[in-house]
Amino acid sequence: MTRILVLYNQPSDPAAFDRYYFATHVPLAKTIPGLRAYTVNSGSPVAMAGNQPPYLIAELDFDSMADMQSAMASPEGQATAADVANFAHTGATILAFDIRTV
Amino acid sequence: MTRILVLYNQPSDPAAFDRYYFATHVPLAKTIPGLRAYTVNSGSPVAMAGNQPPYLIAELDFDSMADMQSAMASPEGQATAADVANFAHTGATILAFDIRTV
Repeated sequence: MTRILVLYNQPSDPAAFDRYYFATHVPLAKTIPGLRAYTVNSGSPVAMAGNQPPYLIAELDFDSMADMQSAMASPEGQATAADVANFAHTGATILAFDIRTV
Repeated sequence: MTRILVLYNQPSDPAAFDRYYFATHVPLAKTIPGLRAYTVNSGSPVAMAGNQPPYLIAELDFDSMADMQSAMASPEGQATAADVANFAHTGATILAFDIRTV
């Protein structure tokens, strides 16, 4: 399984961020072909060690790296990626990786 | 469900890090009571936006925030948390949060 992990920095206007994220960005992201699961944190993330926690943590799962790559190259994937600039004004870190159980 | 997300910074000696992590830390972490799932990245994480990717991304899942808190307060949880200093010499960010499907 391949996961996209998105760590959104603390926004300057959290209410506006939430409004846009849940009303516009989530429905758009859910149109991405091959998206198998999409979760976000509920309640604020707590830092147990290290850096300040991000404001929002989103995880989007695909069956494989190839599926994720074609998903993100699709019109829906491109639109979702482009939409991030519309609300994540303080930036985000976006990571992609295969996962395995240990 | 409650997730602990661990983002390990790039180690100065990746081979030594991997050796310790998989031979010692993973078996120790797997003794934590109430641990439901434990995944790590397979292959290097790729940064699609933002900061440099961490070296290793681990996710440990529990049924609830209360379960995670008692798990981490147990002797096994305390030993696992204390063990991080034995190999994560360049630091790690450890976050805990409830997750929900959107």
